[in-house]
Amino acid sequence: MTVISKDLKLVTFINVFTVESENQQRLVDLLVKVTETSVRHARGFVSSSLHRSLDGRKVTMYAQWRTMEDYEQMRRDPTPVPFLQEAMTFATFEPGIYDVVETFAPPAG
Amino acid sequence: MTVISKDLKLVTFINVFTVESENQQRLVDLLVKVTETSVRHARGFVSSSLHRSLDGRKVTMYAQWRTMEDYEQMRRDPTPVPFLQEAMTFATFEPGIYDVVETFAPPAG
Repeated sequence: MTVISKDLKLVTFINVFTVESENQQRLVDLLVKVTETSVRHARGFVSSSLHRSLDGRKVTMYAQWRTMEDYEQMRRDPTPVPFLQEAMTFATFEPGIYDVVETFAPPAG
Repeated sequence: MTVISKDLKLVTFINVFTVESENQQRLVDLLVKVTETSVRHARGFVSSSLHRSLDGRKVTMYAQWRTMEDYEQMRRDPTPVPFLQEAMTFATFEPGIYDVVETFAPPAG
């Protein structure tokens, strides 16, 4: 479970991958594997949530890290590199690094 | 607070807006206003979380709806249209509609 709240003071990565729809599941499988075997074990990893677009053309990872330094330390680990290089042979990638500004709920009652 | 979990069976919208950095706060203000006054009151709205990229160039809305029909009903309401038209004069917009595939946590302990 992932919780989004500005009070948590986390660094949020929203990374949007674009693929041909016949490759969407292949990218999902790669990102599951790299997260399970490597990323989630890194210091400062809080959570990540993997999303599959209904049109088949996108896969988006919503990831939370304690600090930017923790994220950068993970990126220096060579273990995930071959998986990500494989993904880049059939997907494009638009990264984004964010703060949470506000979270909205329905009116009470 | 927003909770991401595949067990919730929601429809997730991850909409990435790109702006010149001098317009980022203006877009944040517009999206706060349209959400507070209109979107969050619609039937089937579950939550939304507004994100500001650290490089100043993106604003991303992560929104959850109960069903696609609820979302489409809200889109037929004319109230938010002028706000969104104003946003489109200075921002570009990449929409995405998703299912949650999986959420990852750090190892226990």
